[in-house]
Amino acid sequence: MLRYYTAGESHGKELTAILEGIPAGLRLSEEDINKELIRRQGYFGRGERMRNIEKDRVIITAGVRHGETIGSPICLVIENKDWHPELSEPPLTRPRPGHADLAGIIKYQRKDIRDILERASARETAGRVAIGAVCKKMLSEFNIKIVSYTSEIGGIKAEWRNMNVEKIFLLAETSPVRTIDREAEKLMLKKIKEAEKKGDTLGGIFTVIAHNLPVGLGSYAQWDLRLDGQLAQALMSIPGVKGVEIGAGFSLSKKFGSQVHDEIFYSADRGFYRKTNNAGGLEGGVSNGEDIVLNAVMKPVSSLKRPLRSVDIKTKKAVLAEVVRADICVVPVAGVIGEAMVALEIGKAVREKFGGDSLEEMRKNFLEFRQFLLR
Amino acid sequence: MLRYYTAGESHGKELTAILEGIPAGLRLSEEDINKELIRRQGYFGRGERMRNIEKDRVIITAGVRHGETIGSPICLVIENKDWHPELSEPPLTRPRPGHADLAGIIKYQRKDIRDILERASARETAGRVAIGAVCKKMLSEFNIKIVSYTSEIGGIKAEWRNMNVEKIFLLAETSPVRTIDREAEKLMLKKIKEAEKKGDTLGGIFTVIAHNLPVGLGSYAQWDLRLDGQLAQALMSIPGVKGVEIGAGFSLSKKFGSQVHDEIFYSADRGFYRKTNNAGGLEGGVSNGEDIVLNAVMKPVSSLKRPLRSVDIKTKKAVLAEVVRADICVVPVAGVIGEAMVALEIGKAVREKFGGDSLEEMRKNFLEFRQFLLR
Amino acid sequence: MLRYYTAGESHGKELTAILEGIPAGLRLSEEDINKELIRRQGYFGRGERMRNIEKDRVIITAGVRHGETIGSPICLVIENKDWHPELSEPPLTRPRPGHADLAGIIKYQRKDIRDILERASARETAGRVAIGAVCKKMLSEFNIKIVSYTSEIGGIKAEWRNMNVEKIFLLAETSPVRTIDREAEKLMLKKIKEAEKKGDTLGGIFTVIAHNLPVGLGSYAQWDLRLDGQLAQALMSIPGVKGVEIGAGFSLSKKFGSQVHDEIFYSADRGFYRKTNNAGGLEGGVSNGEDIVLNAVMKPVSSLKRPLRSVDIKTKKAVLAEVVRADICVVPVAGVIGEAMVALEIGKAVREKFGGDSLEEMRKNFLEFRQFLLR
Amino acid sequence: MLRYYTAGESHGKELTAILEGIPAGLRLSEEDINKELIRRQGYFGRGERMRNIEKDRVIITAGVRHGETIGSPICLVIENKDWHPELSEPPLTRPRPGHADLAGIIKYQRKDIRDILERASARETAGRVAIGAVCKKMLSEFNIKIVSYTSEIGGIKAEWRNMNVEKIFLLAETSPVRTIDREAEKLMLKKIKEAEKKGDTLGGIFTVIAHNLPVGLGSYAQWDLRLDGQLAQALMSIPGVKGVEIGAGFSLSKKFGSQVHDEIFYSADRGFYRKTNNAGGLEGGVSNGEDIVLNAVMKPVSSLKRPLRSVDIKTKKAVLAEVVRADICVVPVAGVIGEAMVALEIGKAVREKFGGDSLEEMRKNFLEFRQFLLR
Repeated sequence: MLRYYTAGESHGKELTAILEGIPAGLRLSEEDINKELIRRQGYFGRGERMRNIEKDRVIITAGVRHGETIGSPICLVIENKDWHPELSEPPLTRPRPGHADLAGIIKYQRKDIRDILERASARETAGRVAIGAVCKKMLSEFNIKIVSYTSEIGGIKAEWRNMNVEKIFLLAETSPVRTIDREAEKLMLKKIKEAEKKGDTLGGIFTVIAHNLPVGLGSYAQWDLRLDGQLAQALMSIPGVKGVEIGAGFSLSKKFGSQVHDEIFYSADRGFYRKTNNAGGLEGGVSNGEDIVLNAVMKPVSSLKRPLRSVDIKTKKAVLAEVVRADICVVPVAGVIGEAMVALEIGKAVREKFGGDSLEEMRKNFLEFRQFLLR
Repeated sequence: MLRYYTAGESHGKELTAILEGIPAGLRLSEEDINKELIRRQGYFGRGERMRNIEKDRVIITAGVRHGETIGSPICLVIENKDWHPELSEPPLTRPRPGHADLAGIIKYQRKDIRDILERASARETAGRVAIGAVCKKMLSEFNIKIVSYTSEIGGIKAEWRNMNVEKIFLLAETSPVRTIDREAEKLMLKKIKEAEKKGDTLGGIFTVIAHNLPVGLGSYAQWDLRLDGQLAQALMSIPGVKGVEIGAGFSLSKKFGSQVHDEIFYSADRGFYRKTNNAGGLEGGVSNGEDIVLNAVMKPVSSLKRPLRSVDIKTKKAVLAEVVRADICVVPVAGVIGEAMVALEIGKAVREKFGGDSLEEMRKNFLEFRQFLLR
Repeated sequence: MLRYYTAGESHGKELTAILEGIPAGLRLSEEDINKELIRRQGYFGRGERMRNIEKDRVIITAGVRHGETIGSPICLVIENKDWHPELSEPPLTRPRPGHADLAGIIKYQRKDIRDILERASARETAGRVAIGAVCKKMLSEFNIKIVSYTSEIGGIKAEWRNMNVEKIFLLAETSPVRTIDREAEKLMLKKIKEAEKKGDTLGGIFTVIAHNLPVGLGSYAQWDLRLDGQLAQALMSIPGVKGVEIGAGFSLSKKFGSQVHDEIFYSADRGFYRKTNNAGGLEGGVSNGEDIVLNAVMKPVSSLKRPLRSVDIKTKKAVLAEVVRADICVVPVAGVIGEAMVALEIGKAVREKFGGDSLEEMRKNFLEFRQFLLR
Repeated sequence: MLRYYTAGESHGKELTAILEGIPAGLRLSEEDINKELIRRQGYFGRGERMRNIEKDRVIITAGVRHGETIGSPICLVIENKDWHPELSEPPLTRPRPGHADLAGIIKYQRKDIRDILERASARETAGRVAIGAVCKKMLSEFNIKIVSYTSEIGGIKAEWRNMNVEKIFLLAETSPVRTIDREAEKLMLKKIKEAEKKGDTLGGIFTVIAHNLPVGLGSYAQWDLRLDGQLAQALMSIPGVKGVEIGAGFSLSKKFGSQVHDEIFYSADRGFYRKTNNAGGLEGGVSNGEDIVLNAVMKPVSSLKRPLRSVDIKTKKAVLAEVVRADICVVPVAGVIGEAMVALEIGKAVREKFGGDSLEEMRKNFLEFRQFLLR
């Protein structure tokens, strides 16, 4: 069983993430994780704070000895570089529309909106990316790859031209907005600059692809065992995400069945395969061996330089919302977080199906099952 | 804690659903549940089997005494009217694209596709609707209402004209396709007939609305406590659903932040409120008191009268997929199932926040919190 | 992941148990389960109701097709033979000491103690025995055996004379009190008759042994993953159990470390082994390959023919407790329930370690790990 | 929902514990936690390392702002004072009987026993005590107190003379072996010195008492909801614990029912009450308002100065087990850990029953239910 939890406030001392269930014997270094943390920072559209603060660095405080996992819970810590002992500041009392500010203040009966935004912050996702990196490392031992790219920003769509995951990774990693279409990239950059100028923000869509998966992850046997549902929860739980679709997703509402279901073929070397992938790799809540393809929409950043109308929680008077330094467009970053969440859920499903407490045991079980497929 | 599980095969003896965590003292009759089961059956676009078989009827086998819940697990049974002792039939070996058939056969190492489709069947959702009905009954004690309607079929969109949930319910319940727009209804019916004639199927979108919710359900404190993620999983777990969005959803990829975030207002009688609801009632993964609005897309039914290409799992020869009697378009029904899943998840969140083992205790806690809001 | 839940009231229509996570391909008949249900009934010391009613019979309503599991949830139903539609009876208002009666009435705010005792009843354990039988069948495929015997009743101890599990099973099954020591048996029977004459009840201790387990079930990595804790919860959850010990258990409080720790030996054919088993097969919360040995103490039955002092919940007047027909001593039966709970928890641990969705896949993984041990 | 997890190795950089579900608005300082950590250290019978190293100190890294909880996960860190970067040491290969060493090496396929003992170590319990301290603080807001004492060491029993929890606390805290009987104390100290002289170790029994609990925590409705089972798991999960009993526990095997069940009384000012407490505060798995009384037996420490026989995992030759500096008797400390585990589980049950996201909301719900009891 793979379990994962994070703790930590945006301006607290540090972020902490615990990941349990990674088999013993996986080579793991802080560098494996740092490279994912770096991918989470520094893209175009990020605000001043994100661009300027020193890069995040992880410390592995538990679960690894001499560069290898030992089967114990892995604990990762990311220090907040701008942390300092708590000051006595006047409370923030003007909730920002689009944030948890107002709902959080009421739920937890607090008086300072900082008590809410410190946790209900995208900063929290750094912990997820860190443990997601560990899962990715584990999955790479089974040749499973997870990539992502920006497929839309502010109405500008990137076109996908039948490229494989290596190509997608390469193009996205070398794009300032993590997209795979150089024409769209230019228009996206322009659009972001336009938003910045207006003190406004933008949203968009990112795509996550899990490649080279075994058939049979997830199950239709019980509602909460379906991999489609688990992936939907994982992506929807990313702050700002307001929609998730699998494969052809919402476009399926316009089509006939004969146009969308992926016909089944077989060849001696490939086994069963498809020529299309409208199902996005999931049929009946179970992986079918094709790439799992997920889109998620991220709303425009909720913290605006030109604030929206709000109400002071203390005085109940109409005011403008608090202005907190923030980003203009985080869709490129969201893709990286999406990869982490998908890696964690696929990792969970792989652990569930193949068992094993050491990487060696798990690998044997995995290969044994692959043998089945060829019979 | 509210937990729920179902069991049962499509042509097995019966379907069973267990729902745990409903407080003691809730009036509950089989009729409360049957009326939801009836809503799940008999809409336009359903195939022969669904239209003709006797209506589903629930038996409450546990958790209720003298018409009231007693705090013990509630067990609901729905007999399959066409069940008969198992026959010795030749195995089905030609997997249907779009179904779990192929992935299931490989995962569970079976030889007869019936072993898969018997559980990976929409029939399973009857159990969900039954326990969802119990949750709805509980939520109605807190004046929480959950409704749904068909918002799109085969590319035909229904227009929503600022109507309240009572109106939506009324219109949907009196429409053969459960939609709220009489013009769209005609076109949808026409489209379904067209599909039927071609031996084809259609998908679409349904909308679920949860009304009159308290602020503060769900939490941003941990990724898996967010109500948005929980609802996404619940809806995505419905067989055939390939996408879920909250509020303005995927349209947010085209907008500026200033256009989409719901500004905050206050009046002495209403407390905090919004004039728009692009967030769909959820900010930071927490209910903000506005209606929770969810869209889910359902793919066209995967069982086609004119079968798609497939491969025989035994001979590995190219064949046409099995033809199983099925529906043409199940979007209207999917809305009813969606209501059940949303009721179950909202019910879970309400239990979590307000605690209590009897309805009376729960209600006191609920009202006490409502008092908070007015301070 | 193996999960299990039961529902059903003592005099309700039927008991239901759902077991999820059993691999596909396990041969399973109702007879496999009925034979365990019979073992749960009819021992000496059981009261009139238990002795006279027709024997329990299970109906498998889900998860099995043509005599084999298919990977879907298994649902088992046991009808209550003396069920009839609800009568309008005066409420029971005099709680019995030792039962959940009083705490339950307050917790769930009920007025009739029947609303409590109908679920807080040993009858509920029939469902556990049924699903435990399925787990036992699965474990038998890995040559894992689970047996039990009565080790003490009313102060009379049975002596264990270094016998193997087959012998234990044989002796216990042919003893009216399920014990393995014929001398003690006589004294136990005498003691029970003495209690019966006095309108009194007796408790005792039962022992459960899990034999032929692989090394490595459970984990010290997190508090709730330890198999010792899981087994303790499982046994303590049996109605009436007030204590659980592993191996030498409470006697360890009197010994020096040098007297109790099981020294480690090795031989080419047996691998690592022990000559003693004070640890009861568990070190650091992990199975060490030796027999897991558990004792649990069951208090004397709480329903007495000569009732104890109580208070009427309505009038608050001092009264005598309700008299409900019941058993004199259920320790022999408790052992059978204990076997079921241990089978379920060991089954869960085996699923967790070896994964696999079909019995064949699971077995391969299991054997592969056994190979490890010989290196 | 209250959840808790720990991570960290014995000689790693630090121990981490995450506690989720504590309501907002609880005053909490590091001192609240440190005082419990100090109680875990420095009793008689602890070995050199434990006596000499600097005292444990907690750092609250998340979940608290300006001295109050905010509803977010609480993260606690305890640095290991003797940590240093990893050295290249020869592997430990001689497993110690009584420890997880051998089972762990096989389960996780490791070559150095340090990979096992670093986590399967009593050091891990420092994290549990830290989060247990937070739960205790929360419970103290409801006047719930949890205390413990040593009731037996090496066969020397402490006599309990009808004293209240304040007196128990006072006596135990001022005793070098945390017992409440000054005569037994002398004999226990003597016994420990005797064991030390022989290079041997001792075990014993500790008692944990939870006082002033509301009726109705836990439930008989499902096997895993019973509070008795949850507490049994929690205590059995403490390294070295081999048995748990509730109230009269194992002595019940020798008694008649009429002797053991706690008769029910009522008075206007006290409500329902008992004059005896053989049930140890739990009937039917539910708290009945009397003190919850739990005994747990701890085996003698497994690391002996005069090592036992073992087998080298590499050479398979007979050897003596590794000698690791350790304690002689940890029963006094185990009581403190037991308090923490009981606090966590009672805290979980209180959260479950009373809900609430702020301490104020929770308290109102709690008081409201107490009102019920007086009707």
